[in-house]
Amino acid sequence: MRIALDAMGGDHAPEAIVEGCLRAAREWPETELILLGTEESVQPLLGGNPPPNLRLQPVEEWIEAEEEPVRAIRRKKGSSIVVGCRMVKEGRTDAFISAGNTGALMAAGTMVTGRLLGIDRPALAPVFPTLDGKGMLVLDVGANPEARPEHLKQYALMGSLYAEKVLGFEAPRVGLLNIGTEAGKGTQLTKEAFELIGALPLRFVGNVEARDILDGVCDVLVCDGFTGNVLLKNTEGVAKGIFGRLKEELTRNLFTKMAAAVLKRGLKRFAAEMDYKEHGGAPLLGLVGPVVKAHGSSDSRAVYNAVRQTQRFVKRDVTRSISEELQRLERG
Amino acid sequence: MRIALDAMGGDHAPEAIVEGCLRAAREWPETELILLGTEESVQPLLGGNPPPNLRLQPVEEWIEAEEEPVRAIRRKKGSSIVVGCRMVKEGRTDAFISAGNTGALMAAGTMVTGRLLGIDRPALAPVFPTLDGKGMLVLDVGANPEARPEHLKQYALMGSLYAEKVLGFEAPRVGLLNIGTEAGKGTQLTKEAFELIGALPLRFVGNVEARDILDGVCDVLVCDGFTGNVLLKNTEGVAKGIFGRLKEELTRNLFTKMAAAVLKRGLKRFAAEMDYKEHGGAPLLGLVGPVVKAHGSSDSRAVYNAVRQTQRFVKRDVTRSISEELQRLERG
Repeated sequence: MRIALDAMGGDHAPEAIVEGCLRAAREWPETELILLGTEESVQPLLGGNPPPNLRLQPVEEWIEAEEEPVRAIRRKKGSSIVVGCRMVKEGRTDAFISAGNTGALMAAGTMVTGRLLGIDRPALAPVFPTLDGKGMLVLDVGANPEARPEHLKQYALMGSLYAEKVLGFEAPRVGLLNIGTEAGKGTQLTKEAFELIGALPLRFVGNVEARDILDGVCDVLVCDGFTGNVLLKNTEGVAKGIFGRLKEELTRNLFTKMAAAVLKRGLKRFAAEMDYKEHGGAPLLGLVGPVVKAHGSSDSRAVYNAVRQTQRFVKRDVTRSISEELQRLERG
Repeated sequence: MRIALDAMGGDHAPEAIVEGCLRAAREWPETELILLGTEESVQPLLGGNPPPNLRLQPVEEWIEAEEEPVRAIRRKKGSSIVVGCRMVKEGRTDAFISAGNTGALMAAGTMVTGRLLGIDRPALAPVFPTLDGKGMLVLDVGANPEARPEHLKQYALMGSLYAEKVLGFEAPRVGLLNIGTEAGKGTQLTKEAFELIGALPLRFVGNVEARDILDGVCDVLVCDGFTGNVLLKNTEGVAKGIFGRLKEELTRNLFTKMAAAVLKRGLKRFAAEMDYKEHGGAPLLGLVGPVVKAHGSSDSRAVYNAVRQTQRFVKRDVTRSISEELQRLERG
């Protein structure tokens, strides 16, 4: 198996990417890892004796975090993101992972790698943390802000297959994000999507409210990309705000610092559970091959986790499963 | 001033409602408080010597939390919610507060109390907690799930006036909830709303992302009711989940319990800051008179806070300000 990685994207690139790849390459010698990065920034980090299954494929340019996605991928055809997505399309790699510009990766995934037949819009599908530690696949979180009912139906199908084959959920419970649990709630979009998803051969548990996400009320949560993006950022913001404020309380004076020392281990474990980075990358589902978005703030551990998860994405051949399921539905 | 309250609605009704009213009536002797409730459930709670400015106006029925809103307000014309909303319409009270069925209150507000001329849809506008303690008015959180750009424009106008006159923000910063901060981001709805709000005579700070809410990036946040409802419930769910898990860590063993004792005061203060109930009720803006939704889990303190805030709503005559501002815009 061969996996290409964007060495130039993410807050801690290229160091964290290379470091995570070195660890992954040693752990899985049968997996070939290809770093897409510039010679001068990546080569020194590889050291004198990199594992034989890790190599640099030089690129001349990269897309910055702030660049306007569509313009950037049109102008920078030699950038790590565009090259990686093209390699997936042409079968020169089995998968591509990037922690870089999310919008650019989504645009390149759609326009360069290309969509599966029968998929109107790809969906970005990160795993949200849940209190039971199992996590919840949420899609879409922004690949397609203006979703139609048909798109949500496709998300349900793709999400269910990915959750089963890659995340290990048995008969994943698929929920529809809504503003009430009763059928008939919400907007025209959710009402129509409810009917469409209900007719699919999967375990649909109906409408789900945002307040029940952390409790793991379902395994796959379907929503339009605008709402999903708001949900993702709100969860990050609230968790970060509370943990930040908690830290203040713990370091307020000598006594609270002593108390904090006692609680440290438990709180650290909890903070880690709430950390997106532990859950590997977010696949861009619906493309002709695996393209995975790692969190922008990925450290080497997150990169390693993304490689682990992406291997399962390739091995379990989720792309083919989605394609076959679409054809089966098409035939009725 | 006269304020009517639904004694029958909310998780802790009628006890918490009556108790909160008793305190409010003693605190503000010039405000007349009218409890809408059944004789047998409310009268005993009033005791032998209630304050002269607090009285019971008996109703025969009430709407349960689980009832379908529109059907309930049609069938139960003598219920506390319908009677309260009718009293506002007929000028027999200056305001009405209910902690009961949110959907029923929104429906009765729109269909019984009635909309202001120039307002297409009322908006439910709670105050979200922020880390600086000032809070952020968010509207709409579900009165109107299917919003058009024109509606968001009206929310911006109403929210800005309410935040200034009732919450005490000077020149409130109005933001539009979006999935990126740059202009031109998001859906057709947010793109068009961005232009409309930008043309209003208020302090528009542009697009705001959900991850920056807790940091208080603006004072008034405008969004469609579907997204706002998801945001509200997600914030509640994440905060509740984290605090619950924190409690587990603090009570894990004897040592953590001792540590918890040291931290207790600070953590309680923080939890209180994050509590919606501290911020009074959520007005249903855009009606011909003040109708206020108190949190369903309101205790007596929350009821008291809602009365305090509603008095300001009446005194500062926000309804008239909204109406005048609409007419001024109409005239160009």
